[in-house]
Amino acid sequence: MSTIDRRSLIGAAGLTLAGGGLTPAAGAEAAGAKEAPGPAKATPPAVTRTLARYVTTARYEDLPEPVRKEATRTFLNWVGVAIGGSHHRTLDVAVAALAPFSGPAQASLFGRAERFDIMNAAFLNGVSSHIFDFDDTHLKTVIHPAGPVASAILAYAEMKPISGRDFLNALVLGVETECRIGNAVYPNHYDVGWHITGTAGVFGAAAAAGRLMGLDEQQMVWALGLAASQPVGLRESFGSMNKSFNPGRAAANGLFAAILAGKGFTSSDGMIEAKRGWANTISTKQDYREITEGLGTRYETLLNTYKPFACGIVMHPAIDAAVQIRDAEHVTADQVRRIDLKVHPLVLELTGKTAPQSGLEGKFSIYHAVAVALVEGAAGEKQFSDRAVRDPAVIALREKVVPVVTPGIAPEQVEMSVTLNDGRTVQRRIVHAVGSVEKPMSDADLERKFRDLAEGVMPDAQARRVMEMCWRLPELPDVGDVARAGAQA
Amino acid sequence: MSTIDRRSLIGAAGLTLAGGGLTPAAGAEAAGAKEAPGPAKATPPAVTRTLARYVTTARYEDLPEPVRKEATRTFLNWVGVAIGGSHHRTLDVAVAALAPFSGPAQASLFGRAERFDIMNAAFLNGVSSHIFDFDDTHLKTVIHPAGPVASAILAYAEMKPISGRDFLNALVLGVETECRIGNAVYPNHYDVGWHITGTAGVFGAAAAAGRLMGLDEQQMVWALGLAASQPVGLRESFGSMNKSFNPGRAAANGLFAAILAGKGFTSSDGMIEAKRGWANTISTKQDYREITEGLGTRYETLLNTYKPFACGIVMHPAIDAAVQIRDAEHVTADQVRRIDLKVHPLVLELTGKTAPQSGLEGKFSIYHAVAVALVEGAAGEKQFSDRAVRDPAVIALREKVVPVVTPGIAPEQVEMSVTLNDGRTVQRRIVHAVGSVEKPMSDADLERKFRDLAEGVMPDAQARRVMEMCWRLPELPDVGDVARAGAQA
Repeated sequence: MSTIDRRSLIGAAGLTLAGGGLTPAAGAEAAGAKEAPGPAKATPPAVTRTLARYVTTARYEDLPEPVRKEATRTFLNWVGVAIGGSHHRTLDVAVAALAPFSGPAQASLFGRAERFDIMNAAFLNGVSSHIFDFDDTHLKTVIHPAGPVASAILAYAEMKPISGRDFLNALVLGVETECRIGNAVYPNHYDVGWHITGTAGVFGAAAAAGRLMGLDEQQMVWALGLAASQPVGLRESFGSMNKSFNPGRAAANGLFAAILAGKGFTSSDGMIEAKRGWANTISTKQDYREITEGLGTRYETLLNTYKPFACGIVMHPAIDAAVQIRDAEHVTADQVRRIDLKVHPLVLELTGKTAPQSGLEGKFSIYHAVAVALVEGAAGEKQFSDRAVRDPAVIALREKVVPVVTPGIAPEQVEMSVTLNDGRTVQRRIVHAVGSVEKPMSDADLERKFRDLAEGVMPDAQARRVMEMCWRLPELPDVGDVARAGAQA
Repeated sequence: MSTIDRRSLIGAAGLTLAGGGLTPAAGAEAAGAKEAPGPAKATPPAVTRTLARYVTTARYEDLPEPVRKEATRTFLNWVGVAIGGSHHRTLDVAVAALAPFSGPAQASLFGRAERFDIMNAAFLNGVSSHIFDFDDTHLKTVIHPAGPVASAILAYAEMKPISGRDFLNALVLGVETECRIGNAVYPNHYDVGWHITGTAGVFGAAAAAGRLMGLDEQQMVWALGLAASQPVGLRESFGSMNKSFNPGRAAANGLFAAILAGKGFTSSDGMIEAKRGWANTISTKQDYREITEGLGTRYETLLNTYKPFACGIVMHPAIDAAVQIRDAEHVTADQVRRIDLKVHPLVLELTGKTAPQSGLEGKFSIYHAVAVALVEGAAGEKQFSDRAVRDPAVIALREKVVPVVTPGIAPEQVEMSVTLNDGRTVQRRIVHAVGSVEKPMSDADLERKFRDLAEGVMPDAQARRVMEMCWRLPELPDVGDVARAGAQA
């Protein structure tokens, strides 16, 4: 798999942070919107149509086994985070607000008893899956691929039975669509202020849903056009409920586009690439080869990653080091005199809060993250709770964390040296943290994360049953069963 | 009232044309997105909050009488065009597609029997009102103000009784919101490719609906933030059903934003003006004074205009001249030897089709437009039908039309000289065509247009009753009655 470049990681860190405060350097990149234009461009190829042809014809049988496997992991991780967010206040508010307007009870919500029409259900599951910023990440574009796509097609699968193979194929096609479109405009499009998960995501949702609805090529062209007409999300919303809104609304908009196009509601034939189409309007960079080249042979799905820790990726290397030192070296908090950290400048710029007062603030404190990881051996949502941030043992330890910006340390790296009370030192150097493309979470890691997220939402037996269904996705006769099994009994 | 500058008229003409083919000059303006940045800008004021405060507190009692009157005319014109489009194939497709997903039958559609939940009804009436490109125009920004706003709040008014005074106040506040936000980013935002009716319109819909729902200032800030997250529409869609989609979806998105915000779904506090907020992300021009200055004293509503002719504004002066020569000089087609026209270059660039084959093509033919106006004394939707374009009398006359690009003729001007078979000439010079801000359609003109649009959709008695209710808008106890009266009996 390809190496992640620095820009990707920087972008990823920015995306996962409430408030959207990027660095001055990254801010300067936003001026990409103002770069001088290049020489006159040749007429772009039929990008929208090429993509529509691929999405309407690619077969499950032709998916390489690693792609099927990764898409299954993507689905399982998404179900877990959607369950995890299902009783957050964000979702309570949205459910209460939308209930009076919902259509027939066509689809379920994870972890809840209410049922909604498929567009509202897609919205709500999409919101739920992004609440903890703990969903999957395509690091090249910082798109969270599953939210828009899986939310849309799982809702549809409850209305019309869809086999696991068809569902998995559609999921891959949706992820390919959104990530490839994202590649074509990233980073300029993201730097200027768009929440790329919501803007590219709507294409993924439309493509995947349209495929399951049996749209023909022309209808798919229109569906992508109607998707292009409905981008969602600005980075200024980060830190508010509006951030989770974006993947949810992208899912619903994609469904809306596919439903209309499937009945003959027309759009232009070239909404992605035309002069006043999506890419030119919404970005100062347009690399259409990213969309049309290697379709069916190169898979962005393989680059999807899952977070082991419920915080910005910039802190993941340090957390990984702390967990390893605890678990492999059996270091306990009471033995520690001092923790020295060599870090990239972004770590202090983005997560330099020394005395966080709330769980949310803890997500912006490298001091808290390292301390809680060493005390509890994890950094899930529970480790970024008010409880964890106020734990005297964690507070005592975080005051011993000494991060130092060090030249030559990349954003995905860290060097940790723990000095113990007896004078010994224990060290760990992280080149790629767990959860990266190079060192992905194992299936067992994903299961642990899933059950952790489901704890308190549903009985462990139910969580295990849902997880088991996710692993068996390609063999399921009716994927809607997963949604029903994951709802409140 | 202010004079309309050339750019406004050019933009307006562009908006009404299928295919979105603007002139090379206007095309070059689209490069505004690539202009060098100016000096560092001062921190913008609290634009979103200032606007929210105005929208939540402005009173009907304080609206000047001309504003009330113009808003009433705006409403009546919108009802007429929504009735007119209600049986177009675009709406048939959308109704069939969305019916299986609609919530409770909360709101009516003009001219039809189906009922939908308020968000779907707002979408469908919004689509219907834009199908003929015959709705109102705020020429400064080429926004069609009524579609997004009136569609949203009339649907809401069917669910919860709203007095005419409250409705009119909300309509004005919605129009002020969208046009002021449009002013802040026009023309750069439009030139690059956005369909400004759908991008600014969603703010208008959210503001007006939020006001009727009783949102407080903070909730209105959030509603505007959620609106900012859901811009709709690209100019590449012009010429397809997707164009009408845009004001409809803006209406629905605005309602969605207000409904969520009213229940406590949060957004950022500065989504319009923040560094990675709406204006910076979506435009290279941001003039926030257009949004915040003169609130409650200067009204964009007074600049709204209504089209007497169902085609791009660039042909309106010539049509106006032809109708005048027919009606005032009693010239008939069989008397005409030749029609000389002095026109602005845009007329031939945009509407130079000499032999249109369909009604739609007729909208891009100055030859057809002049001929049919002189034969039939009108240029409504019926004069741009296949029937009219194939009328032998119209075809014979259009071959006698000789437009000549003439220096010194502004886009809103024309000089027409009709040479008769007996050698006499009859001339008309148009400086501002009927339907412009300077020479608005009279109330009687609006009534004629309304009844013409309703013909074939509903009995004339019903059309008159609905029209009568529109004129009495400020006195209505329950504005939902207008929607119910305009539905199919």
